[in-house]
Amino acid sequence: VSRCRVNGRVADTVVALDRGLNYGDGLFETVRLVGGAPRFWPRHLARLTAGCERLGFACPAATLLEAEVQSVADVTPPDGIVKLVVTRGAGGRGYRPPATAEPTRIVTGHGAPAYDPAWTTGGIALRVCSTHLGRNPRLAGIKHLNRLEQVLARAEWTDDDVAEGLMLDASGLAICGTQSNLFLARDGVLATPRLDQCGVAGVMRGFVLECARSLGLGLEVRDVPLSEVEAAPELFVTNAVVGIWPVSAFAGHRLPVGPIAQRLQAALAAAVP
Amino acid sequence: VSRCRVNGRVADTVVALDRGLNYGDGLFETVRLVGGAPRFWPRHLARLTAGCERLGFACPAATLLEAEVQSVADVTPPDGIVKLVVTRGAGGRGYRPPATAEPTRIVTGHGAPAYDPAWTTGGIALRVCSTHLGRNPRLAGIKHLNRLEQVLARAEWTDDDVAEGLMLDASGLAICGTQSNLFLARDGVLATPRLDQCGVAGVMRGFVLECARSLGLGLEVRDVPLSEVEAAPELFVTNAVVGIWPVSAFAGHRLPVGPIAQRLQAALAAAVP
Repeated sequence: VSRCRVNGRVADTVVALDRGLNYGDGLFETVRLVGGAPRFWPRHLARLTAGCERLGFACPAATLLEAEVQSVADVTPPDGIVKLVVTRGAGGRGYRPPATAEPTRIVTGHGAPAYDPAWTTGGIALRVCSTHLGRNPRLAGIKHLNRLEQVLARAEWTDDDVAEGLMLDASGLAICGTQSNLFLARDGVLATPRLDQCGVAGVMRGFVLECARSLGLGLEVRDVPLSEVEAAPELFVTNAVVGIWPVSAFAGHRLPVGPIAQRLQAALAAAVP
Repeated sequence: VSRCRVNGRVADTVVALDRGLNYGDGLFETVRLVGGAPRFWPRHLARLTAGCERLGFACPAATLLEAEVQSVADVTPPDGIVKLVVTRGAGGRGYRPPATAEPTRIVTGHGAPAYDPAWTTGGIALRVCSTHLGRNPRLAGIKHLNRLEQVLARAEWTDDDVAEGLMLDASGLAICGTQSNLFLARDGVLATPRLDQCGVAGVMRGFVLECARSLGLGLEVRDVPLSEVEAAPELFVTNAVVGIWPVSAFAGHRLPVGPIAQRLQAALAAAVP
C-alpha cells in the first residue's frame, strides 16, 4: 500500500533539480479526511489555484488533482491527512522560471495527527514566538513552500503541553499561529488579523469567516496588536486538520472556553459529513 | 557520467518527504569551478556552516562535503559550477524539526553559465525589481532555500540584454540583486548594503570586502537608499559564479566601467588559480 504518488505514479522520490526543493518554488495543501473523504476540497483547490496564479504558473487540472488526492485517500486511514504539494517543476539552476517547466504533483497520505482530543473541548495553551513573520504582500495569504519562518518558530519550544505558537510581524501585530489562524471574540464580535502582508489564509479560517457571517456575528478582519490578544476574553485558533481549538491558556493567564468557539465547532460538525 | 550525488551516492532524486522540498528547510552554495577546482570553497563552507547553525541543525562534516563536491567537480566541465544543497533531512509532516533528522546532501554539476563575456569587461544593464525583500533578521544573510522572492523578482523581465535586477526592501533601501550583491563607489570609497534584515551575504561580496580593505579603499556597509544608487558614479555587482560585473546601464542612464571594479577584477584574477 503506497501512500505517495508523484505525477500520478506510485513513487516516493522527486528529481533533485525540482524547483520546489531548490527554491521552495511551489505550494501545498494539507487536507483532512473525514470518513475517507477530503474535507473542504473545493476550498483547498481554490487556494492552490490562487497560489499558482500568484507564482505565475498554471495549476494542474482540478480533475487530475482530485483523482490523485482521492487515490491516496483510499489507502490512508479514513480520519487521516492527505498532503498535496505542487511545484513549478524541474528547472536547471537559476531563479528564472523556465518557460517550459511542467508542474510537479506530489500527494502523500498520513495517519490522523496525535493531538490530545481534549484540546478541542478544553482548549490549548498558546505561546508567543520570538521569530517574526517578514512582510511581503506578493507572498502573503498563499500557502507556498517557503516556510522557514514557521519552522524556526515551531523550533522555539519543545513542551508538548503547548499546542501552538503565535507569530507576530516586526511591528508587534499578531498575524497567525505557526500552523493556524487566530480569532478573538468580544461581545459577540469576531476579529482576525488581516493577512495581506504576511501569514497564510487558512481554509478553516475561510470556513469560520463564512460561518460567522451566516450566524450573524460581527466580523472584523484588521490589524490586531498583541496587546489586544492578551486582553481578549475569548481566543481560538483554526486549521484545516484540527478544526477549531479554543485557547485556554495564553501569556500567563487562563481563559474560559468561549461560546463563540463552541458555536463554530458545532457549525463545523454540522457542515461536513 | 553522473553529475548528481545524493548523500554520497550517484542518484538524481530525493525523497518526497525531505524538508528541503516541503518547507525550504535547508541551505545551498553555488560554487564556481576554476581549472576544475572549487573556487572559494572555504568561504562557501563557512557560510553553509553559519547557515546550518542559524537553522539549528548540524552541518555535515566538512571533509565529507569537500570530497563529494570534488567528486562531482571531476565529472563537470572545469569552468563549470557545482551546486551543493544541504537540507535538514526527511521529516514527516509538520513544521517542528524532528530530533532525529539526518541532513540530506545533494551535489550537482552544471556547465559554465552562458553569460556574455563582454559583460565582465563592458558592464551589464541593471533594472529595479518591483518585488520587495521581506525583512527577517533570523533569515538575513544566509543562503537558505526560501527563494520565492528572488524567483518572483527574476520573473519580472525576459529581456536577455538585462543581466540583473536590483531588489529593495519595503522602505526603498537597496539590498541586493536577485542573484548578486551590489556595490557603489564614489571618490575611492566603496559602499554596500548591510544585510542584517534581508538579502544574502555573497561569497564574492566577502572577497570584495576583504580585498577592498587590503587595497586601502574606504569601505562602508550601511543603509543604501535607491536614490543613492541612482546617483552613484560607479556601480558593480558580484556573485560567486560570475565574479564582478560592472554596471554600465541603470535606471535609464549609462555609467562608465569604473576603476574600482577593474582593480577588484584584477585582484580576483590574481587571487585564485
